Amino acid sequence: MLIVMHHWATDRDIEKVKATITSMGLKPVAIPGAERTAIGVIGNEGWVDDAPLRGIKGVLEIIHVTKSYKLVSRDFHPSDTVVRLGDGVKAGGRAPFLVIAGPCAIESRDQIFKTARFLKKLGVPALRAGAYKPRTSPHSFQGLREEGIRLLSNVRKEVGILVVTEVMSPEHVEMVAGEVDILQIGARNMQNFDLLKEVGKTRKPVILKRGLSATVEEWLASAEYILLGGNPDVVLCERGIRTFETATRNTADLSVVPLVKESSHLPVIFDPSHATGKRSLVPHMALASLVVGAHGVMVEVHPDPEHALSDGPQSLHFKEFEKLLKQLRAMEGFMKTLKEQGGRWRSVS
Amino acid sequence: MLIVMHHWATDRDIEKVKATITSMGLKPVAIPGAERTAIGVIGNEGWVDDAPLRGIKGVLEIIHVTKSYKLVSRDFHPSDTVVRLGDGVKAGGRAPFLVIAGPCAIESRDQIFKTARFLKKLGVPALRAGAYKPRTSPHSFQGLREEGIRLLSNVRKEVGILVVTEVMSPEHVEMVAGEVDILQIGARNMQNFDLLKEVGKTRKPVILKRGLSATVEEWLASAEYILLGGNPDVVLCERGIRTFETATRNTADLSVVPLVKESSHLPVIFDPSHATGKRSLVPHMALASLVVGAHGVMVEVHPDPEHALSDGPQSLHFKEFEKLLKQLRAMEGFMKTLKEQGGRWRSVS
Amino acid sequence: MLIVMHHWATDRDIEKVKATITSMGLKPVAIPGAERTAIGVIGNEGWVDDAPLRGIKGVLEIIHVTKSYKLVSRDFHPSDTVVRLGDGVKAGGRAPFLVIAGPCAIESRDQIFKTARFLKKLGVPALRAGAYKPRTSPHSFQGLREEGIRLLSNVRKEVGILVVTEVMSPEHVEMVAGEVDILQIGARNMQNFDLLKEVGKTRKPVILKRGLSATVEEWLASAEYILLGGNPDVVLCERGIRTFETATRNTADLSVVPLVKESSHLPVIFDPSHATGKRSLVPHMALASLVVGAHGVMVEVHPDPEHALSDGPQSLHFKEFEKLLKQLRAMEGFMKTLKEQGGRWRSVS
Amino acid sequence: MLIVMHHWATDRDIEKVKATITSMGLKPVAIPGAERTAIGVIGNEGWVDDAPLRGIKGVLEIIHVTKSYKLVSRDFHPSDTVVRLGDGVKAGGRAPFLVIAGPCAIESRDQIFKTARFLKKLGVPALRAGAYKPRTSPHSFQGLREEGIRLLSNVRKEVGILVVTEVMSPEHVEMVAGEVDILQIGARNMQNFDLLKEVGKTRKPVILKRGLSATVEEWLASAEYILLGGNPDVVLCERGIRTFETATRNTADLSVVPLVKESSHLPVIFDPSHATGKRSLVPHMALASLVVGAHGVMVEVHPDPEHALSDGPQSLHFKEFEKLLKQLRAMEGFMKTLKEQGGRWRSVS
Repeated sequence: MLIVMHHWATDRDIEKVKATITSMGLKPVAIPGAERTAIGVIGNEGWVDDAPLRGIKGVLEIIHVTKSYKLVSRDFHPSDTVVRLGDGVKAGGRAPFLVIAGPCAIESRDQIFKTARFLKKLGVPALRAGAYKPRTSPHSFQGLREEGIRLLSNVRKEVGILVVTEVMSPEHVEMVAGEVDILQIGARNMQNFDLLKEVGKTRKPVILKRGLSATVEEWLASAEYILLGGNPDVVLCERGIRTFETATRNTADLSVVPLVKESSHLPVIFDPSHATGKRSLVPHMALASLVVGAHGVMVEVHPDPEHALSDGPQSLHFKEFEKLLKQLRAMEGFMKTLKEQGGRWRSVS
Repeated sequence: MLIVMHHWATDRDIEKVKATITSMGLKPVAIPGAERTAIGVIGNEGWVDDAPLRGIKGVLEIIHVTKSYKLVSRDFHPSDTVVRLGDGVKAGGRAPFLVIAGPCAIESRDQIFKTARFLKKLGVPALRAGAYKPRTSPHSFQGLREEGIRLLSNVRKEVGILVVTEVMSPEHVEMVAGEVDILQIGARNMQNFDLLKEVGKTRKPVILKRGLSATVEEWLASAEYILLGGNPDVVLCERGIRTFETATRNTADLSVVPLVKESSHLPVIFDPSHATGKRSLVPHMALASLVVGAHGVMVEVHPDPEHALSDGPQSLHFKEFEKLLKQLRAMEGFMKTLKEQGGRWRSVS
Repeated sequence: MLIVMHHWATDRDIEKVKATITSMGLKPVAIPGAERTAIGVIGNEGWVDDAPLRGIKGVLEIIHVTKSYKLVSRDFHPSDTVVRLGDGVKAGGRAPFLVIAGPCAIESRDQIFKTARFLKKLGVPALRAGAYKPRTSPHSFQGLREEGIRLLSNVRKEVGILVVTEVMSPEHVEMVAGEVDILQIGARNMQNFDLLKEVGKTRKPVILKRGLSATVEEWLASAEYILLGGNPDVVLCERGIRTFETATRNTADLSVVPLVKESSHLPVIFDPSHATGKRSLVPHMALASLVVGAHGVMVEVHPDPEHALSDGPQSLHFKEFEKLLKQLRAMEGFMKTLKEQGGRWRSVS
Repeated sequence: MLIVMHHWATDRDIEKVKATITSMGLKPVAIPGAERTAIGVIGNEGWVDDAPLRGIKGVLEIIHVTKSYKLVSRDFHPSDTVVRLGDGVKAGGRAPFLVIAGPCAIESRDQIFKTARFLKKLGVPALRAGAYKPRTSPHSFQGLREEGIRLLSNVRKEVGILVVTEVMSPEHVEMVAGEVDILQIGARNMQNFDLLKEVGKTRKPVILKRGLSATVEEWLASAEYILLGGNPDVVLCERGIRTFETATRNTADLSVVPLVKESSHLPVIFDPSHATGKRSLVPHMALASLVVGAHGVMVEVHPDPEHALSDGPQSLHFKEFEKLLKQLRAMEGFMKTLKEQGGRWRSVS
C-alpha cells in the first residue's frame, strides 16, 4: 500500500500518517520525490483496511498496489529520473551518454591502476572492476574480495575516477558502500531480495543488472525493492538474456531499452560485453545501444585480455576501446542532430 | 561431398567429373561461382569413396562435408556476395542500405496500390506484401492467395516497383516466381526442406527468414539447401527469436547480424516489425540494425494500421515510415563517415 | 465461422446450409461428428455477415471463432476421441496403451524387415520408419525417399504390421497415404499449413508432432487445420521442446500430456527418443508418460544403433526395447488398478 | 585444487598437507568421505604450483579442477549418497521414497499446526513451509519471517515432525539452522554464492532447488559450493525451468532426474507444485517423478488453498493429497517389483 500526499502536505501531516501506520502494526517508509511525497507501507499484509488513514489531512490518494511495481513506473513519476553518480557525472534524461569501463575482475594493483589511468586520460568518468566475483564453480577465481575493495578505494583517490563494483552479500553492503561510488547488483542476484533491501538503505547509486531469465516486469519489480527501501538512485542495466542460442554467450535484448523507457522513469544502460561474450561484437552493439536510446554503456576493457583471469574473450584491448569511445562520441553528436531534425520533420507533417 | 575445381578448369573437365559422379550412382549439381566452380554430390550416401574422382584434371579439392554448411561459409567464398534484386537494386557488400516495406498482407487493390505508390514516390525500391499468409489458426485471415499474386503482379508493372512475397508451398513456387521479383521464405518454413529445394531451382532471389527457435547454424544450413540447389541469391533476414520474454512479440537478436557476417558471405537484413511486434520500437531497432552492419531492413507499413487484417500493432503509419526513412538515410551517410574515420584511426594507432 | 447443426438436422438441411455458404462466395466443409454435424466455412473473410444462414432449419448455433481452435476443444466435443489406426488398433480414450516403434530412418530392406518382424513377434501393432527425412543440413542423409516408401509398403503387406511414416511435402501426401497406414507430420512441419491442409483431405490418421518451440495453443491450432479439412483422426505427439538446456537434446515437457487432455478430446502420445536424445533416459520417460496419462509412445529402436545413419544415440537396442515393452505392459495393468482404487478412495473420503 | 588422500593416510598425514597449504598462503578444507579423505584448497589462485604438496606421504592424487564440479560427481564418489534428515528419515539410495509437504507460506499458528498434524497422522515425515518468502514484488506478502521461524520451531517440537524452510540471507542461516531440521535454498538463490557458502558451514541437510534457467552443470556446481564448504548433506530438487511456454507456470524437466543420477551421487527430489503451477497436474507429475527415479517429492498442500496468501492454485487440498500419498506408496511398491523383474528379464535375455 502507498499513501500519496498532496504537494502542499506539511511535515506534520506526513508524521501523522506515519504514526497511524505504526499504530496499525505496520511499518511506514517515506519516499520523498520532486513532485510529491509518498509513504510506502511495509508489513505482512494481504489486504489492509485503510480506514484509519483516509481522513488525515494532506493525503491525496491511497493506492492498493496490484501491479508488481509502482514507484519505478512513469505513472507515478512521469519525468525522467537523472541519477547523480559523482561530481558532474549523471545518468539518465538528457545527461551525456555515460561510459563505464574496466576489467571483469581486479587482478592486481598494477592491472587496476593501469586501466584506471588509461580511462582517466580518455575522460571516461567511471571504472568498473569486480572484487567479489560470482562464479558458477567454486573452483574458479573468486575475486580478490576485501583486498580488491582496498585497491579500488586507493585507485579512486589516487587517480580521481568514480568506481563501480558488485556487492553479493547483504553483510558487505555497508562496508563496500563506504569505499566506492556506485554499487552493482549482478544478474544472478537480481532477485536476491535481502540484498536489494540492503542497498535500498544506502545513499549510493545502484546499477541493477537484469537477471539471466528475468522478464521486464520482474526486473522493474526488483528495482521497486530498492526504491521502496528509500534509495531512488537506480540505474537499470540490460546485459543479455539466456535463450536456446549458444552462438553468443547471451542474447542481447536491445529492444527492451526503449520499452523500459516507456514504462519507467529510471535510466537504462547496456552491457555489450556480457550480452555477446565476443569481443568482435561489442563495438557494434555498444553503438546500437546508444541509437536505441540507452543512457550509457558498461564495457569490459583489459590491458591484456589474453591473460585475463575471467571474461578475456569479451574484453576489449585498450586500442579497441579508444576507437569505440571516439565512435560513441561521434554517434552521440549525430543522434542529437537526428532528434532535432526529427522534431522539425514532425512539425512539417 | 563437394568437388571444387581449379579456376582454370575447362567445361570439359567439369563434364568429366559430372559423368563420373553419375556413373557412381550419384547425382552431380554444378554450382558456378565468380571465383571457382564446385560440383555438389547429392544422393543417399553416408561416406562415398572418392577414388574415381581424385585423378580427374581440374579437380582442386574434394571436400567431405562434416559441418552442416559449406557453400554459404566465408571459408568457401571469402568475399561478400552481392545479390542483384532488380535493375540497379542490390543487397549486400557495399550496396546502399536496402529498404523493403509494405503491409503484412495484401487486403485489397486500393490498399496495395496506395502503399506501392507511396513507397515509389519516396524512392523505396521494393514492396513486400503477403498473398499466402501462414496463420496459427485456420480461423484467421489466410491471405488473398492467387488473387493477391495477381494484384502484386499488376502493381509491379503499373507502379514500377520490385515486389517481394512469401511462398509457403513447393507447388506454388514456379507460379509465384513467374510473377514477382523476390521470393520470401517465412520463419515457420525455414526448415521446410522441400520448399527450400524448390526455391533453389528458381532464378529469383530468396529472402530466408530465421526460424522462431533456429540457431545460427541451422539458419545457415537452410540457406545451404538453396545454394546447393543451384540458386546463389539468398538474403538472410533476422526477425526475432522466441524466448521466455513476452513483453515483446519476439526477442530481436541483433548481435547475430555481425556474427553471421563473420561466418557467411551472404547479405543479412533485419525485420524490426516482427522482431518487436510494437510500432513504437520499430524505428529504434531499424536504425540500430543499420549500425550493427545489416544490409537492409524489411519494415511493415500500412495506410491504416488500426484496421489492418493482420499485424496492425507493429505496422508504421505512412508518416512514421517517411520519418524513419529520412533517419535511415542520414544514418547511412553518418556510418560511412564513421567507418572511413575508423580506417584512419586504425592507421594512426 | 462454424455452423453447428441440431442432432435432428437432416441431410437436406445440411445441404441447404452448404449451398447458402457457396452463394455467399465462401466454401463449406462438412465436419461430421458422433454428437452433431458442424459445417466449417473457409474463405478469406475477416468478419462474415451471417444473416443468410440464421434462418435455415436445423441450424443450432453460428460460431464466430475468436479462439485459435474450436473443433479440437473439449467444449465442442466433450468425450475422448478414439482414433482407429487399423484392424483392432486404436489410440485414445480407453484403448490399450499404444506402442509404435522403429528406426529413425529406413536404411535398407534388411534393416526394416528385421525390425518389423521383431516388433510383430512382440505384438507391437505399428512400425515407424522415415523415408523422407527432414535434416538440418543438406549434406546429411536425406532418407531413401520413394524407395523407402516402396520398402514400407512391402513390409506392411509381407509382415502384416501397420506402418507410420512422415510426409514433408503436400505433393507427396496422396502417394504416401496410398501406401501406408498412418501419416506423421514432423516437429519442423507443425506449422507447414499447406501440408496440414493436404493431410486434412486424406482419410488416413495423422500423428501431429509438437513443434520445437510451439505453445500448446499453437499445437492445437495446427490440429484444427487438419480437422477443419475434414479429417478427424489426429493423434497429438509431444516430443520435447527447445530450451536453454543442452544436456538433453530437447526438454521433455511431460506435463502438457494431462494439460492437453483437459482442453482437447484428441489422443496424445509421447516420443521419449527425440524428447531426450539419450538412450539411457528413454525407458524412464516412456514409463512416466504412461503414468501421466499419455495414450501411447513412439520409440526409436534399431537392430544396430551404433551404425544407424541417424539418431543412433537415442535408439534402443532390441533387448532394451523388449524389456521396456514388458515394463510398459506391467505398468499399464498397475495404472488400471490404481485408477479403480482411486475411484474407491474417493467414495470413502 | 583438491588433494585426494590414500585410504590408509593417517590423521598426521592429513595435518601435514593442511599445514603445507596454509604455508602457501592458501586455505585447506578437509572433506572426509566414506571412501577417502580429500582436502580442498580455497583461495584466490589461478594456477597453483603444487610442488610442495607432491611429496607428502599419503597423498594419492592432486587434482587441478577444470570441470566446474568435482565433489558432487560420481567419478569422485561412485556410490549413492544417502542423506540423513532426522531419526529414521533418509533421502537417496535405497531409502524409502521421501514425501515432504506443506503450504507455500506459514500464514498463522492455526494453519501450520493443522497442516502439521494432518501430515503427521498420515505418516509424512517432513513439513515444508516458508517463513522468509522470496517474492517478485515488494508489495506482495513477504512471509511471517522471524515469527514464522518461531511457529515452525513450536510445531516441530509439539507435533514431532521434521521441518524444512527456506533461507534467503547468509545472516539468517545460523539462526534458522538452530530451529529447523532441513534448510532449503530456493530457485532464485541457486547462485547466491555467499548463501551457499554459509549453508556449507552448517551441519544441517540442504535442499538445493534448481534455478529458473540453470543448466544441470550450473546446478551441480552450486551443490559443489556447499560440499566444498564442508557440508556433504545436499539434496537436489528439480522444480521446473523457465521456457517460452506459458500454459504451465514452469516447464517440468523430469528427464534431468535420471540424467543427474548418472553424473552425481546426490539424492534428487522433485517439486511438482512449482514445476506445473496447476493443482490438477500435480498428482500426475508426482507419480511420474517416482517412476523416473526421483528419491522423493516436495508437494504444496494447504488446508484452504482458495484463501492461501501465495501459490493457492498449485496447492492440493488435504483430500487430494491423501489420495496422492496412497498412490505414491502403491507405485513405490510396484516399481520395486518392476526392478526386481527387470533383473530377471535381463538374465534371461
